[in-house]
Amino acid sequence: MKQHVNLIITARWVYPVVPSHQLLQDHAVVVNGDTILDICPVTDALTHYQADETVHLKNHVLMPGLINLHAHAAMTLMRGLADGLALQAWLQEHIWPAEAKLVSPEFVHDGTVLACAEMLSGGVTTFNDMYFYPAAAAAASIKMGVRANLGLVVIEFPTQYATDAGDYIKKGLDARDQLKSEPLISFSFAPHAPYTVADDTFQRIATLANQVNISIHTHLHETKHEIDESEDQFGLRPLARLANLDLLGPTVTFAHCVHMDQVEMQLLAEQGCSIAHCPSANLKLASGIAPIAQAIKYNVNVGLGTDGAAGNNRQDIFTEMRLAALLAKAVSDDATVIPAHQAIEMATINGAKALGLDDKIGSIEKGKLADLTAVQFSDLEMQPCFDPISHLVYVAGREHVSHTWVAGELRYHQPIDSAAVYSGIEPRELTAIVAKWQSRVTEFKSLEHLR
Amino acid sequence: MKQHVNLIITARWVYPVVPSHQLLQDHAVVVNGDTILDICPVTDALTHYQADETVHLKNHVLMPGLINLHAHAAMTLMRGLADGLALQAWLQEHIWPAEAKLVSPEFVHDGTVLACAEMLSGGVTTFNDMYFYPAAAAAASIKMGVRANLGLVVIEFPTQYATDAGDYIKKGLDARDQLKSEPLISFSFAPHAPYTVADDTFQRIATLANQVNISIHTHLHETKHEIDESEDQFGLRPLARLANLDLLGPTVTFAHCVHMDQVEMQLLAEQGCSIAHCPSANLKLASGIAPIAQAIKYNVNVGLGTDGAAGNNRQDIFTEMRLAALLAKAVSDDATVIPAHQAIEMATINGAKALGLDDKIGSIEKGKLADLTAVQFSDLEMQPCFDPISHLVYVAGREHVSHTWVAGELRYHQPIDSAAVYSGIEPRELTAIVAKWQSRVTEFKSLEHLR
Repeated sequence: MKQHVNLIITARWVYPVVPSHQLLQDHAVVVNGDTILDICPVTDALTHYQADETVHLKNHVLMPGLINLHAHAAMTLMRGLADGLALQAWLQEHIWPAEAKLVSPEFVHDGTVLACAEMLSGGVTTFNDMYFYPAAAAAASIKMGVRANLGLVVIEFPTQYATDAGDYIKKGLDARDQLKSEPLISFSFAPHAPYTVADDTFQRIATLANQVNISIHTHLHETKHEIDESEDQFGLRPLARLANLDLLGPTVTFAHCVHMDQVEMQLLAEQGCSIAHCPSANLKLASGIAPIAQAIKYNVNVGLGTDGAAGNNRQDIFTEMRLAALLAKAVSDDATVIPAHQAIEMATINGAKALGLDDKIGSIEKGKLADLTAVQFSDLEMQPCFDPISHLVYVAGREHVSHTWVAGELRYHQPIDSAAVYSGIEPRELTAIVAKWQSRVTEFKSLEHLR
Repeated sequence: MKQHVNLIITARWVYPVVPSHQLLQDHAVVVNGDTILDICPVTDALTHYQADETVHLKNHVLMPGLINLHAHAAMTLMRGLADGLALQAWLQEHIWPAEAKLVSPEFVHDGTVLACAEMLSGGVTTFNDMYFYPAAAAAASIKMGVRANLGLVVIEFPTQYATDAGDYIKKGLDARDQLKSEPLISFSFAPHAPYTVADDTFQRIATLANQVNISIHTHLHETKHEIDESEDQFGLRPLARLANLDLLGPTVTFAHCVHMDQVEMQLLAEQGCSIAHCPSANLKLASGIAPIAQAIKYNVNVGLGTDGAAGNNRQDIFTEMRLAALLAKAVSDDATVIPAHQAIEMATINGAKALGLDDKIGSIEKGKLADLTAVQFSDLEMQPCFDPISHLVYVAGREHVSHTWVAGELRYHQPIDSAAVYSGIEPRELTAIVAKWQSRVTEFKSLEHLR
């Protein structure tokens, strides 16, 4: 007798990521509830299981959902607000003033809804966020059905959201208490960066993170300027300072790490810290090119992030996979580094490891959650194809994503030649959100120009 | 009384590129025959002209067709055939053996058809090609309605196509004689590279190019290895060698130029040579990152190329625009270099200048040919939008191209939520071409593995 299950997805190719670099042809992924029950040849699946729904992906790769390891999702509302600027001028003269005027729970909710829609349509099923009003971001993620690890941001200066470090921490922990039973939501402490957070705050966060058992997510070594300033102020590079403050460990994710010497890479590896590599954002803000191939040789765990849409105007992990693979070759002077399968691991299982969620997500394995992305290979620009894994990185774009499932639920579907469908939101509501903020941000920009 | 014309295209934004960085709102481009007759506000156009056809682009930018300044179009049939290799191993162990077995007029025709389809769907209206059997490439380009400047390739070693340098030159000139009245087709001499062409051949080409008044297209300074080898063999860097052979001048386009010192950039500027910058290909083959922002400061004309699909697996100028703009910032340590409008100039008017076609294409100006690309701004990931020029480079992808006109003819159209249409080919024929070569190249690959 056949076993009853909720969903069978058959695919021309299944790429489970774990075990490494193994492409399965004509396989099925069997899903019950939110969990992957089986991965087997299509004929076996159809013999042994009776499903409520069967989806046939005739010319697709089914792969684990992508993980965006460094995002400021709500900033989607400020997409491309200020181009052509280096990090410090961009932050201090444009982004922080804009945030002071615009950011509110409504801004965060709406911006996160748009980011979730963009990410789902690009195959992202989990994002590691850092922004204000985490409860608003959680509500948006739950609505859209995207898994979110939300950073409880801490910064020394006051904003609309909180007054001082203590207030940020309190508000963060309150949000966590309120939302900790939500299955799609988890939390990190997110002290913003070494240049915006004081020693005692870092120490308090290290202690608290340990007590309440949550991870840490912060910016590190994004620019040479940051390192120079830290050497002037503390006599130490930022990583050394954080090491002295006992902040390092296997639950810590550092975004960027553009500038690292060999001792630092070794330290990150020894401490089990992860890097969220954000190649587009690092190029656009002229921060530099992170020595990722080298860090990986030292066994540092490296995932991929988009950063916020005001800095990197695409919230698109396909672009980051391709760029990470390409850049590493040129800066290492070695065309063999970061082959396609490794770029995909960065965007999936490595991101899961960084978040401490690799027992649940990051690969297609029995017992893991059914966070799945289907990529169609039918479009002309995908053909011919001699190596689907290579195509996922060097040819495919987010526009080839046809289905995105989170915890076994279909959250995004792009049918052939008809409009895309989100399970969490109607097109009209998305349009209304865009129109509202297009006008409010434009008004802010006009006032800025009059100053 | 209204003047009769063939086509009026109204658009929310028209971006003519020349004059520089000027975005026109609610303007129309009026086309008669193959030529742009007028650019004016929509209301004026509808008052003064009566058109056979009017196309309303309600939420689009209409821009000049993109120019792919360095392609090996037929290599689309070998897309992603050999990844993870540096240039010399890739060429000598994989690409040249594959070409020896596979390349024929049929291969070149079919591969160029697929490349034209891919390029049209990404807004490319002109490509600067370098490959064997130029008559077959011309036939494919004419069929698809894409403007092509075809390189008459010259290389010292024999191939199926020709036996020696003299034979390559003769076959190239024969193809040119046969096709010189085709309005979409023009020609360059294409001595392959300094490392595959001898001094006397270069000299003969320089003389002939002058006599028959055609331009020159060659690879230059793509890798350090090429430069080292030239220094060993000739006691000169390749550019110095070509300068000695009197090959430099305003009708010469050098593909790549990854490695250039300041004296070399100055020489290129003085001689009026152009660079075809191919950032994706240079990263993927670990050749390096060309110092393009610096070359532009020296007033070298720089356009953008995809290179062939066996090396850069996407024939996509949108990706090259974004990558060129991003890379230049990081390697110059300056976020202000290559702003979006300059990356678009590289992909349009600069390419036209390199080809000596800037009196005809590269911008939307009265009297120029109507080579036009429409980019839709309706998709969610394009919103909100505060600066359409920034969005064209940092947000848009080739998938946002909705219409591509060449010489006033609509050659590609992607309607909302229905299948794309090419005027030059039926979907069935495209599918048949892909299937044929998918199987032939796969067979070749299998035999290779058995060797």
